[in-house]
Amino acid sequence: MRDDEGSAARLLALSDGVFAIAMTLLALDITLPAGLDQAGFEKALGEVVPNLWAYALSFVVIAAFWRGHHQVFRYVRVVDGTVIKLGLLNLGLIALMPFPTTLLAEYGDQRQSVAVYSGAAAAIGAAQLVLTVALWKRPWLSSTAIPDPVARNDVLDLASMVLIFAVAVPLAFVSPTGAQLWWAVLIPVKVVLGRRAKRLRAAT
Amino acid sequence: MRDDEGSAARLLALSDGVFAIAMTLLALDITLPAGLDQAGFEKALGEVVPNLWAYALSFVVIAAFWRGHHQVFRYVRVVDGTVIKLGLLNLGLIALMPFPTTLLAEYGDQRQSVAVYSGAAAAIGAAQLVLTVALWKRPWLSSTAIPDPVARNDVLDLASMVLIFAVAVPLAFVSPTGAQLWWAVLIPVKVVLGRRAKRLRAAT
Amino acid sequence: MRDDEGSAARLLALSDGVFAIAMTLLALDITLPAGLDQAGFEKALGEVVPNLWAYALSFVVIAAFWRGHHQVFRYVRVVDGTVIKLGLLNLGLIALMPFPTTLLAEYGDQRQSVAVYSGAAAAIGAAQLVLTVALWKRPWLSSTAIPDPVARNDVLDLASMVLIFAVAVPLAFVSPTGAQLWWAVLIPVKVVLGRRAKRLRAAT
Amino acid sequence: MRDDEGSAARLLALSDGVFAIAMTLLALDITLPAGLDQAGFEKALGEVVPNLWAYALSFVVIAAFWRGHHQVFRYVRVVDGTVIKLGLLNLGLIALMPFPTTLLAEYGDQRQSVAVYSGAAAAIGAAQLVLTVALWKRPWLSSTAIPDPVARNDVLDLASMVLIFAVAVPLAFVSPTGAQLWWAVLIPVKVVLGRRAKRLRAAT
Repeated sequence: MRDDEGSAARLLALSDGVFAIAMTLLALDITLPAGLDQAGFEKALGEVVPNLWAYALSFVVIAAFWRGHHQVFRYVRVVDGTVIKLGLLNLGLIALMPFPTTLLAEYGDQRQSVAVYSGAAAAIGAAQLVLTVALWKRPWLSSTAIPDPVARNDVLDLASMVLIFAVAVPLAFVSPTGAQLWWAVLIPVKVVLGRRAKRLRAAT
Repeated sequence: MRDDEGSAARLLALSDGVFAIAMTLLALDITLPAGLDQAGFEKALGEVVPNLWAYALSFVVIAAFWRGHHQVFRYVRVVDGTVIKLGLLNLGLIALMPFPTTLLAEYGDQRQSVAVYSGAAAAIGAAQLVLTVALWKRPWLSSTAIPDPVARNDVLDLASMVLIFAVAVPLAFVSPTGAQLWWAVLIPVKVVLGRRAKRLRAAT
Repeated sequence: MRDDEGSAARLLALSDGVFAIAMTLLALDITLPAGLDQAGFEKALGEVVPNLWAYALSFVVIAAFWRGHHQVFRYVRVVDGTVIKLGLLNLGLIALMPFPTTLLAEYGDQRQSVAVYSGAAAAIGAAQLVLTVALWKRPWLSSTAIPDPVARNDVLDLASMVLIFAVAVPLAFVSPTGAQLWWAVLIPVKVVLGRRAKRLRAAT
Repeated sequence: MRDDEGSAARLLALSDGVFAIAMTLLALDITLPAGLDQAGFEKALGEVVPNLWAYALSFVVIAAFWRGHHQVFRYVRVVDGTVIKLGLLNLGLIALMPFPTTLLAEYGDQRQSVAVYSGAAAAIGAAQLVLTVALWKRPWLSSTAIPDPVARNDVLDLASMVLIFAVAVPLAFVSPTGAQLWWAVLIPVKVVLGRRAKRLRAAT
């Protein structure tokens, strides 16, 4: 017996809220203490630069997850208990992102920071992967079924994110800088899979 | 004379906003001070673990309340003054959750912390219980009446949460650890009532 | 020439967002420093009580403004430049509320704190009053015109809030406690006008 | 081949969320430390004034960008990958605004503060300009095409903001006060272009 718990609208509203807040809280760490003298002010301003870089990185990561979330829920009209639970799990991990971001900004040279960051991104990717598969296997929740090749490409995209970030966890203990460079492997992977997604959607 | 104050859409948008922010602010406490040395960094990173645990617990609690809220408002189209007031009261208690969460993370061994946490969760449960009953008694606000067995099961679910958390308040003063273990009673209760809800909804 | 800038949906989404965040941030001040000993913990927990009281008060104030906002925009479908500007001004003042709330919680015995709080609440009331009148005078923005007696009652409700909070500003400099007691005058006024609103809406 | 990624509704929900949070977080900086004595309290209260001024300025700037965003997306029904990416870039810059605002409030006499603030506002303007042009060049995403004169006026409005804030960056290094006065040039420019926009919309 198929069991649904009503319209997807509120899960999406909650999700957009959590994504929006997580995105904005990432920037809260970019701040200066009050009451510095001229030299202290200039020094503190220079020290903001790694925070800006960590902010930009995490914003891009969360934005990429949001875009995937938007894509995957595109035709979903109704949600059931499993989708709600997986969606909430995903949000619980998204809401954590400000912590590894601060870690990377303040202690980016520490092996643990890079490992925690990679692990957090891999965990969000894994949660979103399970959610994507769950929606794909429940076509009755959607007004239009996502064609199998498109869904397979979405799964491949998330699986590659999970794989790359998961590999970066042990790598960070060998070389924190190496692990951060390894993240860049995601760029060509995302470009290729993004173009493929576009082609597949156009073909259907 | 029945008096309504218009569409439920905005109360739900406000509610999803407060739930999303409360969920995300729970994680704000998971942070490290800047400028620690190697040993201090590793020590501080280890001390983050109870915060993560408290975060996970509170996220699950708020997520469960959100799911109940979603369920109860499923068919509600219009709200009246009483529903708005009860809904706002509920949100005012949800917004407080980051405080007991921090208390539990930083002072989890203190009797007062466990008592305050249990009391806060019981209060949210009680507010949501009153809201659920109010909606059940006002079928004219909904497009479809929730069948009585489903509504009774929802009330039972919330009442069991209130009861378990309320009992934990005095229990915390006897043994903080015992009260936290007692919370685990909720797991089988929620599983049984969740399955029952699913069966009842499928039967209608 | 009547000029509109499109659907009211996004102004309401932005408004619900700002109301939700302001409500939730009010509670951020309710917190304990980490690392206290047993005695320090109990003392700090006791000192949280005035923060809880200030939170409850501000939550009720913002919730009352939200309810009024919800009421006034009930039938509004389209907004013009003036409504957008007044709506944004209102939100800019709502977003400030966490500051006077903290002031009241930490320095409630100071004349300036009570004066600033009263002034902030009066300013929000005044902005919402102007917004209410602007919408009343632009029936073409709404799907249904709010009947004049209902609109007049809404204006009276807001005007009484503005008046009571504005009188509290100078009063606070005479007696901070007296000004806080004076706020309680709002309770019977709101009850009477709320009942009148209900009766007027039912009559139309 | 035209490729779309579904309804604009969620990008707008995310955007309204980020705008609402950025607006509200601007005010978080307006705060007093706890535990001050009478003299310290009065001094700290006086020092809040520049924060209030910086808050008001940034609120007006973000509100103006929100109004432009609202205007530009007025008829947009569907978004494609490019619009999503540009929209997210815009939000990433909006979310940064609390930082230059704090800088201006705490170190408004420093050349770098005024330069960073001007640069941030110019960057948001530039991102919104590119987004506006992208939407203008994709009429198939909208239910109604924005008439060319209206779109050209929107572009002119944003271009003038970018120009004025960009010029203020080097100017700040000559004279921080001069650069802040230069910002005021925006007031007549916005008034003239706003009236022109109203006239153009009315004419179509």
